[in-house]
Amino acid sequence: MFERLKSLWVIGTTVGALAFLVPSFAIAQSDPLPSWNDTAPKAAIVEFVEKVSKEGSPDFVPEPERIAVFDNDGTLWVEHPMYVQLAFALDRVKAEAPGHPEWATTQPFQAVLEGDMKALAAAGEKGLVELIMATHAGMTVTQFQTIVTDWIANARDPRFKKPYTELVYQPMLELLAYLRANGFKTFIVSGGGIEFMRPWTEKVYGVPPEQVVGSSIKTQFAMKDGAPTLFRLPEVNFIDDKAGKPVGIQEHIGRRPIAAFGNSDGDLQMLQWTTLAEGPRFGLIVHHTDAEREYAYDRKSEFGHLDLALDAAAINKWTIVDMKNDWKQIFPGN
Amino acid sequence: MFERLKSLWVIGTTVGALAFLVPSFAIAQSDPLPSWNDTAPKAAIVEFVEKVSKEGSPDFVPEPERIAVFDNDGTLWVEHPMYVQLAFALDRVKAEAPGHPEWATTQPFQAVLEGDMKALAAAGEKGLVELIMATHAGMTVTQFQTIVTDWIANARDPRFKKPYTELVYQPMLELLAYLRANGFKTFIVSGGGIEFMRPWTEKVYGVPPEQVVGSSIKTQFAMKDGAPTLFRLPEVNFIDDKAGKPVGIQEHIGRRPIAAFGNSDGDLQMLQWTTLAEGPRFGLIVHHTDAEREYAYDRKSEFGHLDLALDAAAINKWTIVDMKNDWKQIFPGN
Repeated sequence: MFERLKSLWVIGTTVGALAFLVPSFAIAQSDPLPSWNDTAPKAAIVEFVEKVSKEGSPDFVPEPERIAVFDNDGTLWVEHPMYVQLAFALDRVKAEAPGHPEWATTQPFQAVLEGDMKALAAAGEKGLVELIMATHAGMTVTQFQTIVTDWIANARDPRFKKPYTELVYQPMLELLAYLRANGFKTFIVSGGGIEFMRPWTEKVYGVPPEQVVGSSIKTQFAMKDGAPTLFRLPEVNFIDDKAGKPVGIQEHIGRRPIAAFGNSDGDLQMLQWTTLAEGPRFGLIVHHTDAEREYAYDRKSEFGHLDLALDAAAINKWTIVDMKNDWKQIFPGN
Repeated sequence: MFERLKSLWVIGTTVGALAFLVPSFAIAQSDPLPSWNDTAPKAAIVEFVEKVSKEGSPDFVPEPERIAVFDNDGTLWVEHPMYVQLAFALDRVKAEAPGHPEWATTQPFQAVLEGDMKALAAAGEKGLVELIMATHAGMTVTQFQTIVTDWIANARDPRFKKPYTELVYQPMLELLAYLRANGFKTFIVSGGGIEFMRPWTEKVYGVPPEQVVGSSIKTQFAMKDGAPTLFRLPEVNFIDDKAGKPVGIQEHIGRRPIAAFGNSDGDLQMLQWTTLAEGPRFGLIVHHTDAEREYAYDRKSEFGHLDLALDAAAINKWTIVDMKNDWKQIFPGN
């Protein structure tokens, strides 16, 4: 579906050159955002994209400057009942437990192995970092890519019983494709681990590894038995969240984006950095309001906490997507 | 010249579709690397590019995996009599001296202001870091971009009396364009400062800011009077040299390159990481052998020290460019 949509739009943009091949009415009738209801957010997106990509428009932006940044958790895919990467870490603890008999009596590992979510919560951020380091470091970059690829292919979400890569938001897939068809370069800028996302973002979102920005641990290069290796160390390198997001954007992209898409307070500074500047700018927040088809949460949620950024949206005129009212369909497929 | 060459090759690759528009003999006769003599390096480059980009070839590499990485100093532009960025730092000390009366009697600043290269050398790496921090930090990212852009437009090389951006290697410009015309994505991976390069690499090399990897200092995001700012701090963030280059490549690109181009021991690990793996791989070292048209240096040079990597080239069958014999022309223009 996603690839087909993209193809349609690539064809659409070259219709001038290929008019003799494509019946033009097919183009005129195609809707780049079919899963979006005809409410305000869709209109705002289309208006923005058309004005920056139309040569001669006073708001025209040259193609290389059309940089769009997307948060991942809660903006492109589900983040409840917990971040997918946390589910990965918990599964990895279970998978590696046989090699670590000491985990049976050591927190926070014991809590994970016993499914004791209360004890796990009590371990706090320190416990979480321990879990991440124990499951994300101590192997080469290549080995970690294989572990992630295998897990993401086999893991299932507890509520929808589907692979996590099918619990991505269809309207956002259409938005990514629509932006790219109009000369935008799309980047992911996530608080999640950069190497946790890269193995599957190209296939699922059309975003290649070099356009993924995220949190990272340190790596070390060494020659081992004549073969070069990059080894993952149990040490934080960069946290790509909150005030870290503009820093990560500058480090990786080196240009100021003109459009930013997020869903939580972790995206506030990215939205500020993107939109509070001269020229045409676009900011959007996905507001989870659909408990029936997905989830409903904001100011009181632990995962995807949306409070300051919701207030800032009103002040800065960022577009707010009300999932329940603005999206015809949540996930790909029927 | 550069843009024209690129256009020719883009046309070349789409000649099937546009055959009725372009006389085919023009394509057959065009040489993608006209500044290269018909010696071994040129043949090796063309053979590699053709085999990885030809569908059905046993060595075919899908386009997204065609990643090529280039060192900058000494590989794409001159690095003698000193790194261009060092010349920038020295000029900045002079420009900012009026605001720092204490520099007149404080090393290493005094050495710079008095042109005392012996005292400057005595200040060693510690002195160099002090110079870099004093001239590269303490302003916003945007302000630094303006400073670099102004300097690069006005500074002149002491020997050739030309802007540094004209002292880039014409054969390497052709190589960058040739690779891109064959589906490669070209990245710069330099020990130099990432923000020192980004303001001009797109115009000069056709490499956009998001495809530049380099050394960096830390930056901090803050809202100042309602405006978002990224402030440059006097603290090293990452050194993209030697064993740091594969780390920088993984962090920024997230894929292992299949071709690497360098000229010094600083590029050794990047060449190892790129070439010592399965599948078709290409490594190349630019050897500065032309004292008349440019410079001749290797094992004993301070800037662009080439010793271990020269030995490794023979062992690993990396291509060595002998500038004097393999390049018809060094710089763009006549």
